[in-house]
Amino acid sequence: MPVLSPVLDHIDKHLDDSLERLFSLLRIQSISTDPAYAVECRKAAEWLVNDLATIGFEASVRQTPGHPMVVAHHPGPRPDSPHVLFYGHYDVQPVDPVELWETAPFLPEVKEIEPGRKVITGRGSSDDKGQLMLFVEACRAWKAEHGQLPCRVSILFEGEEESGSPSLKPFLEANKEELTADFALVCDTDMFDPETPSICASLRGLVGEEITIKAANRDLHSGMYGGPAANPIRVLAAILADVHDENGRVTIPGFYDGVEETPSQVLKSWETLGTTAENFLGPIGLSEPAGEEGRSVLEMVWARPTAEFNGISGGYTGKGFKTVIAAEAQAKVSFRLVHKQDPAKIREAFRKFVRERLPKDCTVEFHPHGGSPAIQLSYDSPFLAKAKAALSDEWPKPAVMVGSGGSIPIVGDFRTYLGMESLLVGFALSDDRIHSPNEKYDLNSFHRGQRSWARILDALSR
Amino acid sequence: MPVLSPVLDHIDKHLDDSLERLFSLLRIQSISTDPAYAVECRKAAEWLVNDLATIGFEASVRQTPGHPMVVAHHPGPRPDSPHVLFYGHYDVQPVDPVELWETAPFLPEVKEIEPGRKVITGRGSSDDKGQLMLFVEACRAWKAEHGQLPCRVSILFEGEEESGSPSLKPFLEANKEELTADFALVCDTDMFDPETPSICASLRGLVGEEITIKAANRDLHSGMYGGPAANPIRVLAAILADVHDENGRVTIPGFYDGVEETPSQVLKSWETLGTTAENFLGPIGLSEPAGEEGRSVLEMVWARPTAEFNGISGGYTGKGFKTVIAAEAQAKVSFRLVHKQDPAKIREAFRKFVRERLPKDCTVEFHPHGGSPAIQLSYDSPFLAKAKAALSDEWPKPAVMVGSGGSIPIVGDFRTYLGMESLLVGFALSDDRIHSPNEKYDLNSFHRGQRSWARILDALSR
Repeated sequence: MPVLSPVLDHIDKHLDDSLERLFSLLRIQSISTDPAYAVECRKAAEWLVNDLATIGFEASVRQTPGHPMVVAHHPGPRPDSPHVLFYGHYDVQPVDPVELWETAPFLPEVKEIEPGRKVITGRGSSDDKGQLMLFVEACRAWKAEHGQLPCRVSILFEGEEESGSPSLKPFLEANKEELTADFALVCDTDMFDPETPSICASLRGLVGEEITIKAANRDLHSGMYGGPAANPIRVLAAILADVHDENGRVTIPGFYDGVEETPSQVLKSWETLGTTAENFLGPIGLSEPAGEEGRSVLEMVWARPTAEFNGISGGYTGKGFKTVIAAEAQAKVSFRLVHKQDPAKIREAFRKFVRERLPKDCTVEFHPHGGSPAIQLSYDSPFLAKAKAALSDEWPKPAVMVGSGGSIPIVGDFRTYLGMESLLVGFALSDDRIHSPNEKYDLNSFHRGQRSWARILDALSR
Repeated sequence: MPVLSPVLDHIDKHLDDSLERLFSLLRIQSISTDPAYAVECRKAAEWLVNDLATIGFEASVRQTPGHPMVVAHHPGPRPDSPHVLFYGHYDVQPVDPVELWETAPFLPEVKEIEPGRKVITGRGSSDDKGQLMLFVEACRAWKAEHGQLPCRVSILFEGEEESGSPSLKPFLEANKEELTADFALVCDTDMFDPETPSICASLRGLVGEEITIKAANRDLHSGMYGGPAANPIRVLAAILADVHDENGRVTIPGFYDGVEETPSQVLKSWETLGTTAENFLGPIGLSEPAGEEGRSVLEMVWARPTAEFNGISGGYTGKGFKTVIAAEAQAKVSFRLVHKQDPAKIREAFRKFVRERLPKDCTVEFHPHGGSPAIQLSYDSPFLAKAKAALSDEWPKPAVMVGSGGSIPIVGDFRTYLGMESLLVGFALSDDRIHSPNEKYDLNSFHRGQRSWARILDALSR
């Protein structure tokens, strides 16, 4: 069995080269939610296929009705070596408001943000291009030093993760045999803190919903009609205001069906991590938890469901003032789910909740934006113990098991369609500003992350 | 004293020429609220000065810190002839959403919308370029037939009426002597119906206010922070939802101070006009009055105050979905005032109302957008009786005294700064879609409106 240490040395020596490759990928404007960037998404997929081919992967761009997938395979040392499927996504979030970026979102740089702390700037640097390249670079180092990889490795890179993954399920079903491995590796999560690597054991689900309230058949002058005419912004505000009670609980009937109380020993282990409302909210300029009263911030994020309003618009929103009563108003609403909450039931319950509050003259249109249940991984998987040890060898502090507030629907899909469990290891940090202006990825994450995956591949092969 | 009938004949014969002149003015994109159109506003002012000069007015473009004023003077038959100041505004509202226009907003046309009913299309056709040109054309006809006007006539055309008139008060104060006449004529209101000319005796006031709620110091990922992090859209929705109670009354403390109950004989005279919730709301696709319970739609619009939400925005509002918690959310809010409500007190009461509902972690910024009190004209003015008779001679039905739901702050400013009362006569119709896509002005209004002003000038001179 080849040894690990030359692989780690290779990574150290070639860090600058790996950075150049990441920069090339970050320059591609692969915003999946906006149809105007479809060509850029394809470009990112092709770039990845070309790069994987240079490491000896049999790699291809695979058509879907939306943005393409990248699928690649590399043999292991033996036909019966452990087989892993690595998953990442090459698409990114929109960059607006673009005027708040300090560096151009698609012109990555390395910047020293405090003495000794360098970061990679740019949209996708952390979510998820920086993270997926860690694994590619770990494979490259293994291949360069030993001519082979320690496991059988398949790769699936998606281009629609930030826009609801419409093509994913059919693709998994159609390619079940090709994509099924012993288990999946997913690199799209955070470290607990800059010194503590993390394995994520629970993930919140997500239901996205867009609602449009319509009243009059056209925009109205608020002087001529103000009073008698229904105002859809007023109707929308009243409905949204009803979604939470004064203690931060969601009031939609049936919303908490399937939500379990977190076992007290788990809550206690989270308490030891030292996260407080102050240190969690302080960096983002807040101090008072806005979630359900009487729960810690970690519990709110890792084990409680939410209703969030992600966007709202209606009427005149430009400069100056316009005395208009709009014909319609929209909101984008999402729900984070935990445990056994059912996405379809939550969506239906919300729609009923809205319809019940609609004045006679108004109509509502709903548009779904994806839905996925929460995931709770089994704590006793053998892969998990190996990965935990490998991570603990690389980083200053031992690895911890955490939850994640975000949704990674792929984990549920792998379970549903391929019968495959996932191991979630990521090196993002909570100040990476993913989905926001000035997204970054720590250079340390990029370096030690490559070494971490090199170690995990080694550990899994034993 | 010259006779009226050749003047009316002149108007009839030269209707096409007057239409061409209106079209030239309508083609100028004088949107005052958007700084990008400042050059167009100036162009409109210059066009008007040139046109007035051809009728023998001493006319000039007058600088202000914002868009310019047009001031013009024409002598009467004698130095002691009655002296009127005619007011209109050459600026227009924005045209968004532009994709809903059936004809280009700045390429006016004459269109037959039902057998025998022709309309002039385009932004400003009704509000207010079409209406101000009525008076100019009436003067042109008098001048052409008799070489003089029957009264002394001054004209003031403003270019900031649709954006809060920031330059108006200082301009009136600085030019008090030049602008003061016996009384003002204002043409910016509606007819009661297509056969019934109206004189407007009351006008609602207006307070415009923009509020911005800020929470975190940046946009957040709703998975990583959803739950603990304050969401400014949620905060804003809760505040706006609190502004009205379940009976449509405004809940802001002190809001109804100065509001009087309308005398029962006035309410009775309005009842005879035949306006019902069905025929008022039906054409705009509504059926149920959304204002204060137990009041007629005419009372709601002419004699009751309102709080309206004219615009709202926050978070991701583009195509697709973004799981973001926005750093801020905005709303544009306006209040229509009646009787003795004090604009400054209403603004302060609203700001207090918002601040009292603000969670600890959030901040609010307020930006005022104009304020003016309501106007109630005296029913026993002698000008009013003359104008009423003149209008009744022109139209199929006798003129009626009505209220107006919209604000025309100039009327209060003329009273405050020039000590001058106003006579409000307009020929717009309730289906003119002012401030909306597909604004139009009936060709009949444009024709008989010119004749009406020619008659009123004659009546006032006697």
